[in-house]
Amino acid sequence: MDFRHDETTERLRERLLSFMAECVYPAEPVFEQQSREPGEPWTVPPVVADLQAEARRRELWNLFLPGEHGAGLTNLQYAPLAEITGRCPWLAPVALNCAAPDTGNMELLAQFGSARQRERWLTPLLEARIRSAYAMTEPAVASSDATNIATRVERVGDEYVVNGRKWFVTGAMDPRCAIFIVMGRTDPSAPRHQQHSQILVPRDTPGVTVRRGMLAFGYDDHDHGGHAEIDFVDVRVPAANLIGAEGSGFAISQARLGPGRVHHCMRLLGMAERAVELMCRRVSQRHAFGGPLAEQGVVRDWIAQARVRLEQARLLVLKTAWLMDTVGNRQAHTEIQAIKIAVPETVEWIIDRAIQAHGAAGVSQDTPLARLWTRARAVRIADGPDEVHRQSLARRELRRHRAETPVSARV
Amino acid sequence: MDFRHDETTERLRERLLSFMAECVYPAEPVFEQQSREPGEPWTVPPVVADLQAEARRRELWNLFLPGEHGAGLTNLQYAPLAEITGRCPWLAPVALNCAAPDTGNMELLAQFGSARQRERWLTPLLEARIRSAYAMTEPAVASSDATNIATRVERVGDEYVVNGRKWFVTGAMDPRCAIFIVMGRTDPSAPRHQQHSQILVPRDTPGVTVRRGMLAFGYDDHDHGGHAEIDFVDVRVPAANLIGAEGSGFAISQARLGPGRVHHCMRLLGMAERAVELMCRRVSQRHAFGGPLAEQGVVRDWIAQARVRLEQARLLVLKTAWLMDTVGNRQAHTEIQAIKIAVPETVEWIIDRAIQAHGAAGVSQDTPLARLWTRARAVRIADGPDEVHRQSLARRELRRHRAETPVSARV
Amino acid sequence: MDFRHDETTERLRERLLSFMAECVYPAEPVFEQQSREPGEPWTVPPVVADLQAEARRRELWNLFLPGEHGAGLTNLQYAPLAEITGRCPWLAPVALNCAAPDTGNMELLAQFGSARQRERWLTPLLEARIRSAYAMTEPAVASSDATNIATRVERVGDEYVVNGRKWFVTGAMDPRCAIFIVMGRTDPSAPRHQQHSQILVPRDTPGVTVRRGMLAFGYDDHDHGGHAEIDFVDVRVPAANLIGAEGSGFAISQARLGPGRVHHCMRLLGMAERAVELMCRRVSQRHAFGGPLAEQGVVRDWIAQARVRLEQARLLVLKTAWLMDTVGNRQAHTEIQAIKIAVPETVEWIIDRAIQAHGAAGVSQDTPLARLWTRARAVRIADGPDEVHRQSLARRELRRHRAETPVSARV
Amino acid sequence: MDFRHDETTERLRERLLSFMAECVYPAEPVFEQQSREPGEPWTVPPVVADLQAEARRRELWNLFLPGEHGAGLTNLQYAPLAEITGRCPWLAPVALNCAAPDTGNMELLAQFGSARQRERWLTPLLEARIRSAYAMTEPAVASSDATNIATRVERVGDEYVVNGRKWFVTGAMDPRCAIFIVMGRTDPSAPRHQQHSQILVPRDTPGVTVRRGMLAFGYDDHDHGGHAEIDFVDVRVPAANLIGAEGSGFAISQARLGPGRVHHCMRLLGMAERAVELMCRRVSQRHAFGGPLAEQGVVRDWIAQARVRLEQARLLVLKTAWLMDTVGNRQAHTEIQAIKIAVPETVEWIIDRAIQAHGAAGVSQDTPLARLWTRARAVRIADGPDEVHRQSLARRELRRHRAETPVSARV
Repeated sequence: MDFRHDETTERLRERLLSFMAECVYPAEPVFEQQSREPGEPWTVPPVVADLQAEARRRELWNLFLPGEHGAGLTNLQYAPLAEITGRCPWLAPVALNCAAPDTGNMELLAQFGSARQRERWLTPLLEARIRSAYAMTEPAVASSDATNIATRVERVGDEYVVNGRKWFVTGAMDPRCAIFIVMGRTDPSAPRHQQHSQILVPRDTPGVTVRRGMLAFGYDDHDHGGHAEIDFVDVRVPAANLIGAEGSGFAISQARLGPGRVHHCMRLLGMAERAVELMCRRVSQRHAFGGPLAEQGVVRDWIAQARVRLEQARLLVLKTAWLMDTVGNRQAHTEIQAIKIAVPETVEWIIDRAIQAHGAAGVSQDTPLARLWTRARAVRIADGPDEVHRQSLARRELRRHRAETPVSARV
Repeated sequence: MDFRHDETTERLRERLLSFMAECVYPAEPVFEQQSREPGEPWTVPPVVADLQAEARRRELWNLFLPGEHGAGLTNLQYAPLAEITGRCPWLAPVALNCAAPDTGNMELLAQFGSARQRERWLTPLLEARIRSAYAMTEPAVASSDATNIATRVERVGDEYVVNGRKWFVTGAMDPRCAIFIVMGRTDPSAPRHQQHSQILVPRDTPGVTVRRGMLAFGYDDHDHGGHAEIDFVDVRVPAANLIGAEGSGFAISQARLGPGRVHHCMRLLGMAERAVELMCRRVSQRHAFGGPLAEQGVVRDWIAQARVRLEQARLLVLKTAWLMDTVGNRQAHTEIQAIKIAVPETVEWIIDRAIQAHGAAGVSQDTPLARLWTRARAVRIADGPDEVHRQSLARRELRRHRAETPVSARV
Repeated sequence: MDFRHDETTERLRERLLSFMAECVYPAEPVFEQQSREPGEPWTVPPVVADLQAEARRRELWNLFLPGEHGAGLTNLQYAPLAEITGRCPWLAPVALNCAAPDTGNMELLAQFGSARQRERWLTPLLEARIRSAYAMTEPAVASSDATNIATRVERVGDEYVVNGRKWFVTGAMDPRCAIFIVMGRTDPSAPRHQQHSQILVPRDTPGVTVRRGMLAFGYDDHDHGGHAEIDFVDVRVPAANLIGAEGSGFAISQARLGPGRVHHCMRLLGMAERAVELMCRRVSQRHAFGGPLAEQGVVRDWIAQARVRLEQARLLVLKTAWLMDTVGNRQAHTEIQAIKIAVPETVEWIIDRAIQAHGAAGVSQDTPLARLWTRARAVRIADGPDEVHRQSLARRELRRHRAETPVSARV
Repeated sequence: MDFRHDETTERLRERLLSFMAECVYPAEPVFEQQSREPGEPWTVPPVVADLQAEARRRELWNLFLPGEHGAGLTNLQYAPLAEITGRCPWLAPVALNCAAPDTGNMELLAQFGSARQRERWLTPLLEARIRSAYAMTEPAVASSDATNIATRVERVGDEYVVNGRKWFVTGAMDPRCAIFIVMGRTDPSAPRHQQHSQILVPRDTPGVTVRRGMLAFGYDDHDHGGHAEIDFVDVRVPAANLIGAEGSGFAISQARLGPGRVHHCMRLLGMAERAVELMCRRVSQRHAFGGPLAEQGVVRDWIAQARVRLEQARLLVLKTAWLMDTVGNRQAHTEIQAIKIAVPETVEWIIDRAIQAHGAAGVSQDTPLARLWTRARAVRIADGPDEVHRQSLARRELRRHRAETPVSARV
């Protein structure tokens, strides 16, 4: 057992930390300023393009993607880098072309897309010339049970016809978001996990209506492309737009989620580190009742708990990444679920304490805390609420204990 | 001991429930619609004035105010009415002219204002012709310790000169908000709790600059007058604008908070009841994994805990109101602090569970939950963070035990 | 609404507080000493009889029992008295002949027993000449679902024959415990809630074997009659020993539990008050890191939370008692369940904090805290675990919301 | 980074697992039986000696001790072995001569003892011919602040004279416990951390009185040598009995605690694994309300949380062990404190849930759960309560943030 990062990782960490310090943090107030300026409401501020150019120059580009198309890192190598980008989740990941949902979409295309699909969509995404969205959640059904997804994708001749309503399609309000990957039901009569397929729907296809941006606790995330509600009414796309085989939609969505969760969780840890830093700084500077807040026992209790919980969560994410690399995503299923359960909750708690330590400033626009909190909170729902994952993980644990000869049988 | 409401209360509850059902709930979508319409960004939607007219007609007006100026109710009588208005906190309280911060300001003027101050400001407030704001919190100091308040209020001849910066001045972005009650330091050399005074500063006084609206978790609350950051630079007001005596500012602010907290807490309970209702409805209707969410044990656990915690919190608020009526606000200090500690935390938890039960809809603009949650969360900071109140309450508890002959001394 | 106790209650509270101060607390070390002395291991120390004599003299006897047989108090009147006895739960309740399980058994006999049963068993119990036990829980089945109870009670001629094993029969290790009320299945083919009956089984009936005393976290409670495991093998009792009608066992057990829960909960609150007092005293006296523990923020946080939670819990118990008196136990079902959920959890938490504040002394025999904690913890299981009650309460809450026209229907 | 155990560890794990299955679990009921038999009350049951003989035969002996005297394992190698012994903490550690407090005492003697002290005491301890105790905690002072320790150790001629009272001296009730390591104050006028020394006091020295066994939640742990209260009155020992230099007592006690905490924490994890196993088995077998408990959502929630928290805690302990091996105990101070904070709390929670899942059986002597829980609970106090460690860890975290250039300084 060895808890050291390997050399590649250390080298990239150094390079990325420099990029953060020299480029990303200084860009924060610029981004803030630009995102408040009038103009096209859903566009990403121009400073992002500058950062992207610089990141490419520094060879910090597409780090998330294993294999030939990307940086070729393992999950274990990428994880600590993703964490660092989480310290500024609204700027750093996109600067490196490592922002969700494009990362998951690129992985999906790299793994399951046809050569033509890859050429048409993956290539421009890898170069950040376009953006993409993943349309899964539906307002009308409990999407936590993916088999509930009701959007219809029907084969009619050489085409598929898509009908349904999706929402919380992250990034899709941005007019540069050119392609949607839509999950829908191709065969309602098939077995439960083989009814769905994934299909590519270009934004400008007739019948596609981006209706509105959804809020998350008051934030429309307009500087990231928002979260769209989209209607698909008799939307026709060529049959070749289907990703993989008919009925593979559920399996593909599961495959997409594993690495995505590790990335999400690592970024969340970076967010929590940022919150701890802000909290420590704040309580050292603010005085009340005769001393700095840092001398109050309850505040110190928060800081200690934050550190202790954060360290544990990080180790579990790293181990999960290592398992994915060594035994594969399927064998790491329990751990992937475990981090999805543990990390958002932990990070939400930490950011909440940092908010409390900031008083009114903590809920305001003058610190990133309220917005970071909202992200962490939303992850507890996105991609399956905690509760669903806990039930599922428990079922496996119970099964394992039934399979093994229990200790007591030997007593 | 008797847990029944008296007849006056019951009668008013009936009348108010009818008003909610016939007028307030139907006005919700109208308000929503109007608040999205373009125009002066910080104005209250016109439907509010309609509701106010109707509330006056139904004699549901200024219920919060004891004595001749208001409805003459006791705290115990008003409390359950305030709770009902909390079911729609963005419409019902203002409809009844019972919305913070105007309520606290009217109480303050009724209790401590001079005849001239009452005539000039209280009268139009009681008729909802103007609005008011209470400028206490400052960005530069930990305002949880009120003695930190640094804004200077200096006597120069017949005037006071105000210099300082305030923020989170609720309601002050609304151009109809005509008067600010400002807390500032009149005598830095006086004993710690006698340095401050409260002074009336009309909005249009030269030197007053309303700089920006503050956000709370992404919400600017523009449909309620927002939360302003305000600069006071050499602002001169007549000496007669001082409320009470010089040095009484701290005492007045404490007096203002007691009833305010009971009102806040009761409204919070109404918010929680709304959340429980939404949660119960949602989980009865949504299906996942083979049945309605309402059949899932974890969801039921939330509902039970919500009910059990809510009932306890309500009783404590009611008892506190009763104490204020019978032994006075000072003697009820511990209980007032206790509800400030208990209720926001409880209600925040309940709304959070309701959000989780709603999935993505819960964080969105399609239910009131995210906004309700933000309110509850903010109250844990506003008017002193929980932690400050807990330290203070504990000190009194410790003192009490030192004073009494402990059981063990007799053993 | 009125939160004052009535005069009867106030008078009895005064009298009881004097008894506690003059007799019970001074008897604590005597009891402690006597219970460590060698001799018959399961006998109640003799100081208890002295206290009982004194309590009768002071007319503090059988306060729990409404109606002619007892003191004739309402639940609301008795509740605060039960709380006071909870400050010394191992001495005060038994001193007043108000200790479980005898109280529940006496209520049961008073309400459902035949004249002959009352004469034979209730009379000596009311005079504390004998003790009784309630044999319900079984080791072999999940007794939280009372319909699982498997002990057979078969009619054979003029007799019933009892076969089964019970455990955690509180008080039954005490040789003075003369009578067991046993719940068993008389008709396995009847509808689910009419299969069981309650039957009186004298301790000395052939076939009754008291096997062993059960521990609760290391305590055998030998000074209270312990918690017995009992075998019933072909135990024959006259048919007249059946309480009520055949098949009424489930209903009778439910009727027994309502008042019992209020009493339990009030005593638990008294235990928590004792813990708060011990905690406050301890932290005022102990010094570490340069000051008394009472100056540490985390400790003060505990004290405040203890006070705030305790006040809420007490009010809910009092309201429940009031409901039972005014609308009846059936209508108060939700509240009875609510206190069973809320109070033990709250009290357990408070005692745990008091233990932590005491360090090693807290877990030892030198304070009553560890033993009090064990009692509180056990109540979370006894008489149905929290989880069962929460599921049940939630079902009713959900039903209520389905029945009512929801707010949203009006919107 | 690599999460695999090395070969030595894997090999020893296999061997130890076989020993557990073939010897330890089968010995559990024997131990139980023997410890209930009449006789010398504080003696370890004879089955322990049998297990020790077998463990030596299997070369599973003194695994805890690095260096020449022991098995020579690193902390990282020993940690997973300690965890396995935690599955039966009352038998397995002692069987391997790896039980506290002897382990810590042997480490202390190996590291700081003189050649003569090692020969006289370490040698028989390594062969389990005698037992030892560590007398640190005192009833009269808050020992969480070690500088409070008040026992006097005064040099008089060639001797030291010891006066004071210690308690919770684990193991010291066992008559085979031949030697006490006593911490006391040699120089009250020295700087705060140089006032204390450690000294060897043989049990049979005149003036040593073992007064009584302390309870922990009703358990006297008589089958492990209990937890003694000991008076030292004018106890004279040769000056050569001092361990290390005068004034080094605080430093030695700190050095003793690091490895001890890792061992404690690993054993706690094993206890939690045992609890999870018992819980899973129980809920699969028990039925209530129409199905096995394992189908209840709340129960599954517990199981999932238990697994997720346990995995995180284990990783933190392993990383801490790795840090101790690679950068030394001093540099691993934060992590050592972190596991002391995190693990007992986590494990206590898990065992509590397992108890709840067992109903009455969970608190009784029929499962090991109540006793395991008591151990976990006690560790939250022993060796410094959680709160002290949290304050200390937070101070270091705050210091670190003050030292580093914060992100914001770059923004």
